[in-house]
Amino acid sequence: MMKPSIEFVPGAAPPSSIIIETVAPVIDAGRYAVKREVGDTLQVSADVFKEGHDQIAAVVRYRLGCEGDWREAEMHFIDNDRWGGEFPLEQIGRYQFEIEAFPDFYATWSDELRKKADADFDVTSELLEGAHFLERVARSAAHRDQHVLGDAVARLSDAQEQKAAVQVALSAQVAEAVHHNRPRDGAQRVGPFEVVVDPVLARFAAWYEIFPRSAGTDPSRSATFHDVIGQLPRISGMGFDVLYFTPIHPIGTTKRKGKNNTLIAEPGDPGVPYAIGSPEGGHDAFEPSLGTAEDFRALVDAAGEHGLQIALDLAIQASPDHPWVNEHPAWFYHRPDGTIKYAENPPKKYEDIYPINFQNEDWQALWHELKRIILHWIDHGVTIFRVDNPHTKPTIFWEWLIGDVKAQHPEAIFLSEAFTRPKVMKALAKAGFTQSYTYFTWRNFKRELIEYLTELTQTEMKEYFRGNFFVNTHDILPYILQEGGRPAFQSRVVLAATLSSLYGIYSGYELCENTSVPGKEEYLHSEKYEFKARDWNAPGNIADYISRLNQIRRDHPALHEYDNLRFYPADDDNILCYGKVSPDGDDNVLVVVNLDPFHAHETMIHLPLDVWGIGWDEQYRADELLGGETYIWTGGDQYVRLDPHQNPAAIYHLRAWLHQDYAEPCF
Amino acid sequence: MMKPSIEFVPGAAPPSSIIIETVAPVIDAGRYAVKREVGDTLQVSADVFKEGHDQIAAVVRYRLGCEGDWREAEMHFIDNDRWGGEFPLEQIGRYQFEIEAFPDFYATWSDELRKKADADFDVTSELLEGAHFLERVARSAAHRDQHVLGDAVARLSDAQEQKAAVQVALSAQVAEAVHHNRPRDGAQRVGPFEVVVDPVLARFAAWYEIFPRSAGTDPSRSATFHDVIGQLPRISGMGFDVLYFTPIHPIGTTKRKGKNNTLIAEPGDPGVPYAIGSPEGGHDAFEPSLGTAEDFRALVDAAGEHGLQIALDLAIQASPDHPWVNEHPAWFYHRPDGTIKYAENPPKKYEDIYPINFQNEDWQALWHELKRIILHWIDHGVTIFRVDNPHTKPTIFWEWLIGDVKAQHPEAIFLSEAFTRPKVMKALAKAGFTQSYTYFTWRNFKRELIEYLTELTQTEMKEYFRGNFFVNTHDILPYILQEGGRPAFQSRVVLAATLSSLYGIYSGYELCENTSVPGKEEYLHSEKYEFKARDWNAPGNIADYISRLNQIRRDHPALHEYDNLRFYPADDDNILCYGKVSPDGDDNVLVVVNLDPFHAHETMIHLPLDVWGIGWDEQYRADELLGGETYIWTGGDQYVRLDPHQNPAAIYHLRAWLHQDYAEPCF
Repeated sequence: MMKPSIEFVPGAAPPSSIIIETVAPVIDAGRYAVKREVGDTLQVSADVFKEGHDQIAAVVRYRLGCEGDWREAEMHFIDNDRWGGEFPLEQIGRYQFEIEAFPDFYATWSDELRKKADADFDVTSELLEGAHFLERVARSAAHRDQHVLGDAVARLSDAQEQKAAVQVALSAQVAEAVHHNRPRDGAQRVGPFEVVVDPVLARFAAWYEIFPRSAGTDPSRSATFHDVIGQLPRISGMGFDVLYFTPIHPIGTTKRKGKNNTLIAEPGDPGVPYAIGSPEGGHDAFEPSLGTAEDFRALVDAAGEHGLQIALDLAIQASPDHPWVNEHPAWFYHRPDGTIKYAENPPKKYEDIYPINFQNEDWQALWHELKRIILHWIDHGVTIFRVDNPHTKPTIFWEWLIGDVKAQHPEAIFLSEAFTRPKVMKALAKAGFTQSYTYFTWRNFKRELIEYLTELTQTEMKEYFRGNFFVNTHDILPYILQEGGRPAFQSRVVLAATLSSLYGIYSGYELCENTSVPGKEEYLHSEKYEFKARDWNAPGNIADYISRLNQIRRDHPALHEYDNLRFYPADDDNILCYGKVSPDGDDNVLVVVNLDPFHAHETMIHLPLDVWGIGWDEQYRADELLGGETYIWTGGDQYVRLDPHQNPAAIYHLRAWLHQDYAEPCF
Repeated sequence: MMKPSIEFVPGAAPPSSIIIETVAPVIDAGRYAVKREVGDTLQVSADVFKEGHDQIAAVVRYRLGCEGDWREAEMHFIDNDRWGGEFPLEQIGRYQFEIEAFPDFYATWSDELRKKADADFDVTSELLEGAHFLERVARSAAHRDQHVLGDAVARLSDAQEQKAAVQVALSAQVAEAVHHNRPRDGAQRVGPFEVVVDPVLARFAAWYEIFPRSAGTDPSRSATFHDVIGQLPRISGMGFDVLYFTPIHPIGTTKRKGKNNTLIAEPGDPGVPYAIGSPEGGHDAFEPSLGTAEDFRALVDAAGEHGLQIALDLAIQASPDHPWVNEHPAWFYHRPDGTIKYAENPPKKYEDIYPINFQNEDWQALWHELKRIILHWIDHGVTIFRVDNPHTKPTIFWEWLIGDVKAQHPEAIFLSEAFTRPKVMKALAKAGFTQSYTYFTWRNFKRELIEYLTELTQTEMKEYFRGNFFVNTHDILPYILQEGGRPAFQSRVVLAATLSSLYGIYSGYELCENTSVPGKEEYLHSEKYEFKARDWNAPGNIADYISRLNQIRRDHPALHEYDNLRFYPADDDNILCYGKVSPDGDDNVLVVVNLDPFHAHETMIHLPLDVWGIGWDEQYRADELLGGETYIWTGGDQYVRLDPHQNPAAIYHLRAWLHQDYAEPCF
């Protein structure tokens, strides 16, 4: 943003003297788009002012895409030079908006006329001035307004009856006719700014992660896409929306890792799905043991019938056997001796994986091939991509890729699996990722949860960063789950599912699997290196608890929103209390969680009844949705006791008690 | 700021993947310049990062003006992807700066080499890679580095002795030679951003306002520039730096106002100096009764000899008798009947003043004439302008005018007399005004003072808005002075002179003049409408108090700074406690003010000894500078009592007590 240069050339109009500043919502002065979901209304605001006492008008201009016709919505003065307006986001895609403001001569003039007339001044001159203005407006006015304006000009020009002329000048009809045809001399405009409008699924979804090869019952061999179809009733039955697969592409054999990350694979060891590529193909091929393209299509269709969308894993790296290695050697890093460098983080080596050089001399072919791969999978019915380690690839690449793909497929969703430094995670989200992994996985206690969630949902981050709260992943078995056992599995999934509108679990969570590599947050006998078959009905499982939780999420519009989270005080430091209210105010959900998986805690909680419009002496009902109890409460201070072995968390639906007083019976 | 478009054309280099964000200090994404004073060092910082684990380097590039050669200063990693650097502001003028960052191949490579060598890996490949890199650096290296680099290439290429080669590769000489010649492939650059560097007087000055026509001893006639020369010893004796004159131009006679703003002037009434223009001339002429151009020049010179700089009042408006009225009728607002509109704010009328239409069809001639007038006065030795009501003229006009004038005369200072809405005041400062009037005039009590001063000195405002704290003006006699009398005059001037490094008084303040138009903040018998002659030795005057205050300001570098204000807790709500420490830490001034002009208050104050490096059990001395008492204090909690009729305020110079222990005498 540099200052405007002023053109001192004969006949040039003076520069606009209106200032438009601090437009919201805008990220980094418009460098990046904000994010919303279809059906939302975008609330736009800005500081708008000019010198002196002239009145001004402002509009927000908007359009879908960057070529359509602009539409306009009037902005209104709020306070302290702040103006606000809004427009509906009726379709998915990329909207643009601008703010335009201009002096409102009619408003300034009519206001002055009214004051002078009220003070019984002679207003002959003012009426003549108004007549001239209205004449000018009439010249370029729409036909329907010509008559009103013409009449007014006549009345104002021949002002024998000043009082009547003033009435005409200030009449609603004249004001409206002028409004339709306002001259915009001296207009200032800022923008365009952008809004990416995603499907609602971008904001509200429960994800379930599996290794498709573990969908069977025989741990000695790979399950198939067909076996995954067999799992769909169980997974959709728990209420999940997105079924995310770790990579399904051919796995390399060179330097293949064995069970538990051993350096040498035994015969029959399936290898790590992230070591992508073999003679069977690369990122657009299927690991043969999983099935064929037809099988995959059948799975995508069957998932759709179960209300599940498939998400694929995009891991841009190659096994030494990937076709790219021979076809595009330039895409890799080379040693002086010409060999290709494997991934390493000295002294650690990852010899089964070659990283990709995004800035090699043949970068254009690489970037376009990666786009082709995404479009290929979209053609196969997959529009959701969980992107592995995006922070090790150029952010500018993602901005280009996601922008280009979404220009064709605005329904596409990209989840950033960037567990890295905070500013890098934010940059990826700004650059276009629809959703992001978060530090939630490691935020267990009260102060840190409040602090982090406040940053995510109440600061500028809410405009572009949608945190998808994973309680675990195939790479991360958090200590709280290792130590806290079943109560921790319950409280953590309640936190994830209610703090954020987006959350996910990695399969096995419902079985409270928590055997780790000693001292690490890694799973022992990790599925990354071997086949797995599970008993989904194992004792102690919390599948029903998760099903109930997802049903509560679906039933309650308050939980469909991301940035409506509010924390409420609870006296005990082990108990977190928070809630969400739906945008229309009709749905009010209160959540109380015991963060200590070992001991029961009891506390007073303090609820903002005034914000909710409930009187301090009014009864309201609190239906606890996990356990099914109903309480009648009065006042904002309430008592809650949570025993991790009984009820580690409580979710209340709060409603005013329906008051019915005695009424004369009709008989 | 729009996103970069990526060029997919044959041979194009890949886009830089470095991100540079949140550069500071920057106003509105670089739309406006930040302000500093000559001798300062500009501290620049930014978030700088890229994908992956490559190391990066960053520099801040800077130059005076927009055409000179760029110089560079290295930036250093601070924390959390934040980088900082600095450069000296050695001259007044407009500096530009940019931030450039690029991958630091040598740092990445040498770090990896070190880790691998430490782990006893074979590093043949790494050394060869390094040799290739150093060879490339050597090719474009400065002569002095060729030798070091050539040697290193030889040692690394023939690595029979790996350990020795690693030592060479990591040696300080090689690192330095590489540093001088770093390749900048993949560089990212943001900017330019701008810094206006003003004279120190822009930040640290005490202003004194007079009506030159009242500088004499006979209230029945106009004093002259010569009489003003007679006042210089008194004014400079009080320690003021800037002597500001209300307009000195010919005053119109048409609709001239009489004493106390009466509509009809009596013969001999001098008129309002803001009704500028008569047949004698306009904004570049002198009111004949004040003197000639020669007299004025003599006054400017004499003021200089007394250490005073003259500030003129720029009020862009005209009396009906201004030469512009006939010469440039297009510059005014006209009624339908062709007559010129006078200023009004219905139902109020200001018939002695015509406002100027800045956006008339002949605006270019007007704007250039106004610039000519400024340059005219600069030719007459005046470089300081107090601008009357700038908020009723287009901000874009000021941005152009001040920018153009300062391009020729970077020493020029413009003070914005905009008492208006906060965002308008800020916009004028951003647009280029050197200093600004503030709401200080109406901030009397503890909470409101802390809140407002914190906004001014501790938020983004400090980068562009220098508040000049006027305790009174010819238009404003605040109620606190009307009600509080002499103690209020004392406490208010201490507040102004120590809260801000810039402050001002309107003459008569030192006499505690406080007779108002009843119920208003206006002076009765205002100098705006009549001549005045004062007895500067009138009983009860606080001239000595002000002299002492200004001497304290001059003696203490801590009080020369604007944004080093810190508030400290005082238990009593009537007592404000704050302080300033000089940038080098050597000067520590503590101020305690009783805000209640009626009653004595006593309180404990709580000082941050830890920040100052004074131990809780160490003695330090507090020399009270207004009264001359010395106290020895221990600990951060101290007792202060302030009686408005004795000592409404205290200013302490705090110093560690010089400890001298017993030492064996040398005899």
